Amino acid sequence: MSLIIDCHGHYTTAPKALADWREKQIATLNNPSQAPKVADLKISDDEIRETLEANQLKFMNERGSDLTIFSPRASFMAHHIGDYQVSATWAAICNELCYRVAQLYPDRFVPAAMLPQSPGVPVETCVAELERCVNEYGNVGINLNPDPSGGHWTSPPLTDKYWYPIYEKMVEYDIPAMVHVSTSCNPAFHTTGAHYLAADTTAFMQCLTGDLFKDFPSLRFLIPHGGGAVPYHWGRFRGLAMILKKPEIEEHLMNNIFFDTCVYHQPGIDLLLDVVPNKNILFASEMIGAVRDIDPRTGFYFDDTKQYIEAAKISAQDKHNIYEANTRRVFPRLDAQLKAKGL
Amino acid sequence: MSLIIDCHGHYTTAPKALADWREKQIATLNNPSQAPKVADLKISDDEIRETLEANQLKFMNERGSDLTIFSPRASFMAHHIGDYQVSATWAAICNELCYRVAQLYPDRFVPAAMLPQSPGVPVETCVAELERCVNEYGNVGINLNPDPSGGHWTSPPLTDKYWYPIYEKMVEYDIPAMVHVSTSCNPAFHTTGAHYLAADTTAFMQCLTGDLFKDFPSLRFLIPHGGGAVPYHWGRFRGLAMILKKPEIEEHLMNNIFFDTCVYHQPGIDLLLDVVPNKNILFASEMIGAVRDIDPRTGFYFDDTKQYIEAAKISAQDKHNIYEANTRRVFPRLDAQLKAKGL
Repeated sequence: MSLIIDCHGHYTTAPKALADWREKQIATLNNPSQAPKVADLKISDDEIRETLEANQLKFMNERGSDLTIFSPRASFMAHHIGDYQVSATWAAICNELCYRVAQLYPDRFVPAAMLPQSPGVPVETCVAELERCVNEYGNVGINLNPDPSGGHWTSPPLTDKYWYPIYEKMVEYDIPAMVHVSTSCNPAFHTTGAHYLAADTTAFMQCLTGDLFKDFPSLRFLIPHGGGAVPYHWGRFRGLAMILKKPEIEEHLMNNIFFDTCVYHQPGIDLLLDVVPNKNILFASEMIGAVRDIDPRTGFYFDDTKQYIEAAKISAQDKHNIYEANTRRVFPRLDAQLKAKGL
Repeated sequence: MSLIIDCHGHYTTAPKALADWREKQIATLNNPSQAPKVADLKISDDEIRETLEANQLKFMNERGSDLTIFSPRASFMAHHIGDYQVSATWAAICNELCYRVAQLYPDRFVPAAMLPQSPGVPVETCVAELERCVNEYGNVGINLNPDPSGGHWTSPPLTDKYWYPIYEKMVEYDIPAMVHVSTSCNPAFHTTGAHYLAADTTAFMQCLTGDLFKDFPSLRFLIPHGGGAVPYHWGRFRGLAMILKKPEIEEHLMNNIFFDTCVYHQPGIDLLLDVVPNKNILFASEMIGAVRDIDPRTGFYFDDTKQYIEAAKISAQDKHNIYEANTRRVFPRLDAQLKAKGL
């Protein structure tokens, strides 16, 4: 039996007090003396339990997943709002909350951190929060936003030396980053229907264009939402690699880039499993997230991705790799935590 | 036997004099008195023939496609360069060149127009060129750039009334628009590997979010590159439609939106044919475009999309629809031209 590890969960159902606090923070951006204090936010353990047991834990139990790598709500990171200090305060609050979740349910949730990114600010400023989350909170990974401007794409590509301080720390700690944007403040981009998928595709292409993994051979990126458009256009990307005089994608990128299974229908999952090497695919659902309904054509929740993996025509070993082995390999700190529990 | 109509071709191989002229135009942007004159551009019919017979026509003959809907090179539209007048002059030159191609090879090429879009400029300014291209040049469609800023996405969504003057003209003339961005001047986005696919996905999601086709029931958009990420994430988009209280995508969008087959590997084409209604799929290759090599794993050119359609497990009728019938329905002016020739 595999441990079923969902490598992509966010605390999308956090108690309302969190959103209320953030609203106050945003409302006082131009009037910092009125800003809410961290201590103003009161959320009890019972409130946390309630939100999880009615939502994520309920679905994990119903669908049969054991463990979720759990990070702050992606669309709420909103790094474009305010300055670095605003992001730093907000990230610290959100990360602490996910840490509390993991403490309340140590067998079901393992935390991953959001970073206090801010557009135009050197990414070095995120290192302290990353260190705290790994060393004090037991985080096993981070979410890295390639576009902290929220849909204006003002940051340099992920291959730029701008990002290297974070990569150095990731390599030192042996933690991967999920490359995940946040809410779009650009009216052209719907957040979960356009910005997320465009960012996934863009991040992959930035890596394809450069040679980042020559500088960081052990750096690992998890590209969510099944890799955006990449698996569907695998031939296009292979052809682009040839034009750019790069090796085949498998050699050039796939020792360092991984895709999750947040693709919400069977044909999409089948394509992912068909074209992307098995070792590069990690089980995930991102529930409760972008789509929350039951597909009237299947009778399952759209984001119940375990159904699609179960129905896929791949070997038991391949399924085991997707559910557990690949994730333990990509997240060595998770693996160590599990081993310490005898798992 | 079907007529094999490639609905997505650009004059990517135009004589070098064209690029040279454009370079001069760009070099003199701040010094208009030195700008090159339209009359300075000299391209002979023989030069046009040469570029086509060594390239597009050669491949059309080898691969067995009969007719290409042919528009100016997409990445060269570069609407972000200069002001409206710069775009107007450039569009007129490029459209005339495609018209000449169609006159030289009336059985092989049918023109579609680029528009003289310019960021921030009302789209009404494009109507005159559109009229000229349809009435004088026999164009059967247009390319509409949803992001004339070239990767900064400063225009309103396609559902915004900003775009309505073009839609009114499209409806009047009964011509579709291929929604196609141009080169990216944003270093975050590789033009053909990120910006194109992100734009395709974004355009679809803009339409999903709105109710544009209630205002224009006969408006037709062709989304290139197999619809970007859309077919791979068909479940996600169906789920998003439910959350947004829209009807199923087939009802909400698929009387008005069509995808081409510019997907450069068999599994991608198979997915497209599996999830998208047959009536919404139009044959295309976009050769000679983003990828130009032979896939070492298949021995075929990546962009020889006819190979993938031929190998697909769909009926002869479905193939006929993709090769010919759907395109004649989406491009009624092409259909009329073909009928006038007894085809």
